[in-house]
Amino acid sequence: MRMVDLIEKKRDGKELSKSEIDFIISGYTEGRIPDYQMSALAMAIFFQDMTREERTHLTMAMVESGDQIDLSAIEGIKVDKHSTGGVGDTTTLVLAPLVAALGIPVAKMSGRGLGHTGGTIDKLEAVPGFHVEIDNQKFNELVNTNKVAVVGQSGNLTPADKKLYALRDVTATVNSIPLIASSIMSKKIASGADAIVLDVKTGSGAFMKDLEHARELAQAMVDIGNNVGRKTMAVISDMSQPLGFAVGNALEVQEAIDTLRGKGPKDLEELCLTLGSHMVYLGGKADSPETARTQLEEAIRNGNALEKFKTFLSAQGGDPSVVDDPSKLPQAKYTFEVKAGEEGHVASIQADRIGTAAMLLGAGRATKESVIDLAVGVVLRKKIGDSVKKGEPLVTIYSNREDVAEVKEMIEDAYRIVPEAVEGPPLIYDEIRVK
Amino acid sequence: MRMVDLIEKKRDGKELSKSEIDFIISGYTEGRIPDYQMSALAMAIFFQDMTREERTHLTMAMVESGDQIDLSAIEGIKVDKHSTGGVGDTTTLVLAPLVAALGIPVAKMSGRGLGHTGGTIDKLEAVPGFHVEIDNQKFNELVNTNKVAVVGQSGNLTPADKKLYALRDVTATVNSIPLIASSIMSKKIASGADAIVLDVKTGSGAFMKDLEHARELAQAMVDIGNNVGRKTMAVISDMSQPLGFAVGNALEVQEAIDTLRGKGPKDLEELCLTLGSHMVYLGGKADSPETARTQLEEAIRNGNALEKFKTFLSAQGGDPSVVDDPSKLPQAKYTFEVKAGEEGHVASIQADRIGTAAMLLGAGRATKESVIDLAVGVVLRKKIGDSVKKGEPLVTIYSNREDVAEVKEMIEDAYRIVPEAVEGPPLIYDEIRVK
Repeated sequence: MRMVDLIEKKRDGKELSKSEIDFIISGYTEGRIPDYQMSALAMAIFFQDMTREERTHLTMAMVESGDQIDLSAIEGIKVDKHSTGGVGDTTTLVLAPLVAALGIPVAKMSGRGLGHTGGTIDKLEAVPGFHVEIDNQKFNELVNTNKVAVVGQSGNLTPADKKLYALRDVTATVNSIPLIASSIMSKKIASGADAIVLDVKTGSGAFMKDLEHARELAQAMVDIGNNVGRKTMAVISDMSQPLGFAVGNALEVQEAIDTLRGKGPKDLEELCLTLGSHMVYLGGKADSPETARTQLEEAIRNGNALEKFKTFLSAQGGDPSVVDDPSKLPQAKYTFEVKAGEEGHVASIQADRIGTAAMLLGAGRATKESVIDLAVGVVLRKKIGDSVKKGEPLVTIYSNREDVAEVKEMIEDAYRIVPEAVEGPPLIYDEIRVK
Repeated sequence: MRMVDLIEKKRDGKELSKSEIDFIISGYTEGRIPDYQMSALAMAIFFQDMTREERTHLTMAMVESGDQIDLSAIEGIKVDKHSTGGVGDTTTLVLAPLVAALGIPVAKMSGRGLGHTGGTIDKLEAVPGFHVEIDNQKFNELVNTNKVAVVGQSGNLTPADKKLYALRDVTATVNSIPLIASSIMSKKIASGADAIVLDVKTGSGAFMKDLEHARELAQAMVDIGNNVGRKTMAVISDMSQPLGFAVGNALEVQEAIDTLRGKGPKDLEELCLTLGSHMVYLGGKADSPETARTQLEEAIRNGNALEKFKTFLSAQGGDPSVVDDPSKLPQAKYTFEVKAGEEGHVASIQADRIGTAAMLLGAGRATKESVIDLAVGVVLRKKIGDSVKKGEPLVTIYSNREDVAEVKEMIEDAYRIVPEAVEGPPLIYDEIRVK
């Protein structure tokens, strides 16, 4: 088998077999196939796409390129949630205790990563004392006892995907449905999930700008997951503006607490209930997502969800009293208001600018070496469709430095205010359920 | 400027500017742009094509990536001929003295290379004493005096093309009209030609298997040449079977002598007259290709062409008496006949198999280290459309070893004989003249 012939085969629109895809991925991971052949293949895939079978084979070849997490010591159906990424996405912080409160085991491996804010672990570290330095045995024990624990990613998961993603990033081949879908799904499958709930974002602040492509990506991932025996469904949700109000680490923890108490932003709550109901259903704890939703609403109402959050925090060294006294979370020295320059209605909010503004304040890492400031960030006061008076606050900035001129300007530019009334976007566009 | 953005631009079907193409080619030649980005771009070009302007910019960027030959010391319009390659193509050996006989300066830089037979220099070295070890000054003098000389390629011509071609070869991106056209034209332009006559082959033995693609390639090259002020035209000729009869080095020299005497294979003679008439016309020595053709026919009839060949050979140390006594050319020890297994008509001859048979005998180089046997090769006795009797010779093998079983079998397999009458293919399909 020669790589050049396989590139030509894909270039000419033919289907690669399982053994051909295995040859490509193992050869690439082990350095026998050079980057310049892999990038040519990636570009051919960009143009010629891959069949359902090819996508599945590619995903599994990447899964098998490295370690696979064994979660069998944990009882029950392990349901993982994955979001394709957006701005101010606090869902994981809410969902982990919320579905655990209904007995779904949440064995969360999470990262720090680059971005507008920190990763889930960074956010949780805003709780004094909280840490993820627990070994595998302790992790399994915690999940079995409390149904929820978070640990840092360990092991050499999907090295083929890591190498290929870095290559795609510099060869204009990121934006390919089969490559995105297999990249995401390989990581989820290697992480040991039995079932997967996907939150595919669409809109100006998301990777998939339009609904059609978001739906295509969602369907591709659902197909792959179910093809390899992992029950997988997807929700397509709005990211034409930041989700919820808070963008920042401690700020998002506080927003998660509010939401678990039933007093959070309506869009964040609704998305958590939607995703959570599918997690509970796929986890076998309800006979339909609709029943599951009722159970989740009850867990918020009766305080079980909030109680689970406290248990979870203290099990990993965190101070649970932050839940009732948020002033114990890191606090920024200064707050500033970005005010509306005119009266009208919010027509759009460029989510990526809001995210970048938070990062500039120190809430996220621009490079691996950046140090995160857990206290800082922004909180939106107005969202799309809201009416504003001139001089009314649009956004509150939480900062540890006094000079926020650049950040203010960026936020002002992100808001577009128009005279006429505006209808807010829908939150959930579609669901792709297991057939 | 970032390469990844330029790859994306081409991927999305947009046009690259001159400065962008210059950035790509100079960066790639100098190693700032890695192979893995260049191969992704080449694949994007494969799918998205290039505009006429892009092709011209790419060609000139490759010309400017290395040395450019200065032929200004040679008087007259320097007309070069290029063939896209086939089997048994003896045209250069015939055309060089033939058009020189009409006063067209033939300043030929040629190579050795890999293939079914040697390059033009190898073939000419079959003439005892002939050599190309002459310096630039001597080369210019010879062309000014005799109107014809051949020298080995020197200097660092189109390094960008060499590097890109090697990359395309292993990334399934050879077969792209804009990349093929710019590769060929950059070499011709860097070699200093004022005018260029292209022989684009089509058929089973050619790189372009069908007429449509051959015509597209021819038009692309003609456009590039004329865009940069080099008068360029193309002839599209048949390569559904080897041209002429001989495939081998000394054997082709002999066939060239026969043709210069007016006694060569009809197809080879016709193609030489066609290509030659355009060379003479573009060289300004005739007011139309048709007039030029009459002059060329006369140069064959009156012996001037053959005389010019002798002058050319002796000027570079060759023994001109081979022209009248071909036994002085290297002779193979053995000859064998491949005979027809059945009565009928030749329906097809797989040219590449015939070429490979010649190479197996030692007529060409499989690798750079191979040593060529100038005496060996094959001579076709039957071509497409010819009728054959059972046992009649199809091909004569000239060999220096006795065991030619493999070669015989390959030739037998190359011929297809059918009961019904067959019409031979046309020789010239089309001409694309300077507008």
